[in-house]
Amino acid sequence: MNRGQERLRSLLRRKNLDAVLFSSLENIRFLCGFTGSDGALIYGREERYFLSDSRYEEQAKGELQGAGFERYKKKLEGIARRLRALRVKRLGFEGSALTWETYQSLKSHLPRMTLVPLTAEIWDLRACKEPAEVEKVRQAIRIASESFADAVPRLKPGVREKTAGDFLEFRMKRRGGEASSFPIIVASGPRAALPHGKASAKRMEKGETVVVDFGVRHEGYHSDETKTIILGKPDGKQKKIYELVRKAQDKAIKAIRPGISVRAIDRAAREVISRAGYGPFFGHGTGHGIGLAVHEAPTVSPRGRGVVEPGMIFSVEPGVYLPGWGGVRLEDLVLVTDRGCEVLTYLSKELGDNVLKG
Amino acid sequence: MNRGQERLRSLLRRKNLDAVLFSSLENIRFLCGFTGSDGALIYGREERYFLSDSRYEEQAKGELQGAGFERYKKKLEGIARRLRALRVKRLGFEGSALTWETYQSLKSHLPRMTLVPLTAEIWDLRACKEPAEVEKVRQAIRIASESFADAVPRLKPGVREKTAGDFLEFRMKRRGGEASSFPIIVASGPRAALPHGKASAKRMEKGETVVVDFGVRHEGYHSDETKTIILGKPDGKQKKIYELVRKAQDKAIKAIRPGISVRAIDRAAREVISRAGYGPFFGHGTGHGIGLAVHEAPTVSPRGRGVVEPGMIFSVEPGVYLPGWGGVRLEDLVLVTDRGCEVLTYLSKELGDNVLKG
Repeated sequence: MNRGQERLRSLLRRKNLDAVLFSSLENIRFLCGFTGSDGALIYGREERYFLSDSRYEEQAKGELQGAGFERYKKKLEGIARRLRALRVKRLGFEGSALTWETYQSLKSHLPRMTLVPLTAEIWDLRACKEPAEVEKVRQAIRIASESFADAVPRLKPGVREKTAGDFLEFRMKRRGGEASSFPIIVASGPRAALPHGKASAKRMEKGETVVVDFGVRHEGYHSDETKTIILGKPDGKQKKIYELVRKAQDKAIKAIRPGISVRAIDRAAREVISRAGYGPFFGHGTGHGIGLAVHEAPTVSPRGRGVVEPGMIFSVEPGVYLPGWGGVRLEDLVLVTDRGCEVLTYLSKELGDNVLKG
Repeated sequence: MNRGQERLRSLLRRKNLDAVLFSSLENIRFLCGFTGSDGALIYGREERYFLSDSRYEEQAKGELQGAGFERYKKKLEGIARRLRALRVKRLGFEGSALTWETYQSLKSHLPRMTLVPLTAEIWDLRACKEPAEVEKVRQAIRIASESFADAVPRLKPGVREKTAGDFLEFRMKRRGGEASSFPIIVASGPRAALPHGKASAKRMEKGETVVVDFGVRHEGYHSDETKTIILGKPDGKQKKIYELVRKAQDKAIKAIRPGISVRAIDRAAREVISRAGYGPFFGHGTGHGIGLAVHEAPTVSPRGRGVVEPGMIFSVEPGVYLPGWGGVRLEDLVLVTDRGCEVLTYLSKELGDNVLKG
């Protein structure tokens, strides 16, 4: 039983719940091992049932750990039948995953059952990773890093962003990755000012800054990393912005240790950028947890909550985006240790190592 | 203005709504053109606002049609502020897209506003395609089909399912596709009994049946097609099951014309399989609509509702899955015309054309 399951069981007791209904695929995988893409998990105090339709029956039976399989034809009817059989009177549910429609349908099937929304209480269920989970993230990082090296020759003037991104993705899969963590970002020149500038048909040009944000899934666990490269000798402004972002990232990473608040980590990066006068051009949070989901607890931002704990893995990714000019983002993943943190991603973020002469 | 927008406007009047809040990315793209991955659309009787955070500001301003842009820092606060400014008293929302949490948050921000769930009323908003949309699906099909031809040499004994699937995906992207419509299915031998058997590390073997389910996104629109190939001379059972599924698919396609119910189309395929004694081994619906989403209205299944109309595009994909032995699925996309339907996918489903000698 992992730490998440221990916390879930104590939550069941504390909130006096007979069971929790899970509908998010990441929590389902985390709690019972099913890796497919449709189903529901009823996590009771004593018994656990994973429910799905006939498409997933064979797969589920091969994967489930600590949960029985039950097939439904109509999802909600199947869930309701099992809840009735278990005599569930108080059912917790994922407030941020269940849709309004499913909630209403559950209520109408089981009008006397009390539905208890869980949001903050389960948001960080998966935040602290077990060693086996850390290992999967490390493997994902290795696959992505080696693939990035494969793709470097394509990062040059004249090549379309999409061509380079597609090649990087192909290499990540060729090296054993299951899927790209998200649509790869290759944003060159002025497009680098788009924090989410998916690789486009634009050709990269000499002298441009190129933000490359990539990652891969390995046994369900994701990597996520951002390099910013310069295609040729950097000019004064490129140098200045790059070094500023790097300093901000460095400050944030140095601040990380068990017990520090996520806001303080965000502030460490943000202050560097604000003091240099670029505060308004760093419009997103400093980082996010990662694991079975690309974005999960903790949220490292000015509005994040709580403190960090050993075993958490999250990104540190400040950026500066200047409309019309471009942008720089540097992203690494860190693992919180007993005394500080270990930077898991290992590709160099030194400016000198990111100048490609093409 | 497309047909979906006309229907939406008449819905606003009929239900006496001041506006509808859209949170599903497909409807947002359909109604205002935004192609990114976070935001909300307030579709009012007179005014439309797309709201997102700073990451998407530049992109949205370049893409929006018929809607203004508004930036928020906190999503729900931004939405509530705009709804207040528009004096919205009755707000429709997507019952199957809005989470319980967002619903509660909207209620607490705007306690005097009436929230009206829309589910069946908007489920088929995008079902009938405009000619420009049909063209995008046709282009997606062309990219996928040509890429399949590229990948045929990799569909042979000794090659891992995943290697073949990854290559097919790479070709689809190389030929201009934006992304794979879904994780490609390459399910060989006994794995073909898994209707959703994602390509695995298993090597294909001589004599096996291999189900290949693939598709690509082009300008937001998806293709989806399934070929079943035999690696060598088919044996009696392979022939029998293949021809049975092909006959079922053929019957369903022949039944399609405006005004026929989706259930009757499903029944046409299902009866063929049931009469042959394989009814229990066809556990899913016959088809699904496709467009900006891979699965959208109409649902062609025993529990689907309504009749088909000209302009609808959906899949016809019966299958027979025999645990331990394997399976066969054949999937084509059809466009409903004024008198019947046009089969949009054009790769041959004749058994003779799907026997690969490797």
